Amino acid sequence: MSDGLAGQGDLLLAFDADDTLWHSENLYHAAQAQFRELMTSYADESTAMATLHRVEVANLPPYGFGVKAFILSMIEAAVELSGGKVTAAEIGEMLAAGKEMLAAEVELLDGVADTVARLSADYPLMVITKGDLGHQASKLERSGLAAHFRYVEIVTDKTAEVYRNIFAKHGIAPQQVVMVGNSLKSDVIPVLELGGWGVHIPYRLTWAHEHAELPADLATKYREIERLDELPALLREMR
Amino acid sequence: MSDGLAGQGDLLLAFDADDTLWHSENLYHAAQAQFRELMTSYADESTAMATLHRVEVANLPPYGFGVKAFILSMIEAAVELSGGKVTAAEIGEMLAAGKEMLAAEVELLDGVADTVARLSADYPLMVITKGDLGHQASKLERSGLAAHFRYVEIVTDKTAEVYRNIFAKHGIAPQQVVMVGNSLKSDVIPVLELGGWGVHIPYRLTWAHEHAELPADLATKYREIERLDELPALLREMR
Repeated sequence: MSDGLAGQGDLLLAFDADDTLWHSENLYHAAQAQFRELMTSYADESTAMATLHRVEVANLPPYGFGVKAFILSMIEAAVELSGGKVTAAEIGEMLAAGKEMLAAEVELLDGVADTVARLSADYPLMVITKGDLGHQASKLERSGLAAHFRYVEIVTDKTAEVYRNIFAKHGIAPQQVVMVGNSLKSDVIPVLELGGWGVHIPYRLTWAHEHAELPADLATKYREIERLDELPALLREMR
Repeated sequence: MSDGLAGQGDLLLAFDADDTLWHSENLYHAAQAQFRELMTSYADESTAMATLHRVEVANLPPYGFGVKAFILSMIEAAVELSGGKVTAAEIGEMLAAGKEMLAAEVELLDGVADTVARLSADYPLMVITKGDLGHQASKLERSGLAAHFRYVEIVTDKTAEVYRNIFAKHGIAPQQVVMVGNSLKSDVIPVLELGGWGVHIPYRLTWAHEHAELPADLATKYREIERLDELPALLREMR
């Protein structure tokens, strides 16, 4: 391959966390189902979901990503959808749903534990994740994976500029980076734009806000696999 | 002084941000007043404030510090205090209060802009702040001070262990650090415990959770000033 990687000693493997290393979107999905259920007396399902989505996206600038932002948006959407009739008990259920999400056990995706342990013997590993600082740090701790990662970066958003600053801070050229994640928009495309490699592992659920198309001119250093345990073989093949 | 600092080239000045560089607690104070007002038909003032405080502290483990955590706690306290009668309109006012806090102009404390600019010519400067990642980064950006800081650390909590890890990451011995902040508990005592210097600048409002006593055995490297612009003279005197 003309675009082959340099020697493996020069490579850094960077991983998204939510829905790449461990399940996350399933918790949002369950909370959304609970929200629809709570809203049945005020709005039909599609209106409820469309309103929640609109409020969440509108609230990204003030709130950022993560569970706290999601719960605040759910409450705001409920106030709006109910025409001011949502009850305190219903609000209380949303707060409780949020705490359940924060306390939920960290459930690794298939093959992650072994693959991360194995890759950490050969490459420096980095986690790059967005969301609540405390919640992400807590999940990494509880995942049992923390010791395998040399670098942990928790950020507010995942743009090419954010990635550039992270890699620069650690003296890593983007060309040395293989970024692995479930979001084309947040994990793969920005790193491809910087000249790095992007490995996409689609998750069965993707938040509508994270949908994106891969620009054709960035396809050379793009790969897609189904599970993280296909990564070691892919890395051998890419060299 | 026996415990004099090393040459100034060896020193690092670290600053807390909220209520040390810019006003923050006044925004919480105003939101609390609004909360008391909204709760008048459900509870007397002292019950309202005591409940809010209890809920906030109980929610520190799941939510951490910051405006989003505060608003979620305010809503939870309202559900509880009202015996389930709080209205959607009142919840809506709390959400709006939270957004106002997040959007509020960053108001520097007296003397901060000049002093930080002046000190940055002689010392490497660090900000160490806790709270919402995005909100803290946004305030630093909007403060006009960002360019003066070589290091920016946004953390979930400020314990001696957190400070030790930060300083170790940058190859800085705690003895080289002068930590400046308004909270004895979060800014001053943990750094004194590591062997660094702690400079306390009390703010006129302190959240009850941040109250602490200075242990007598840590007083040697402790100083107190009234305003940040007294820091340059204090540093000269300490040498």
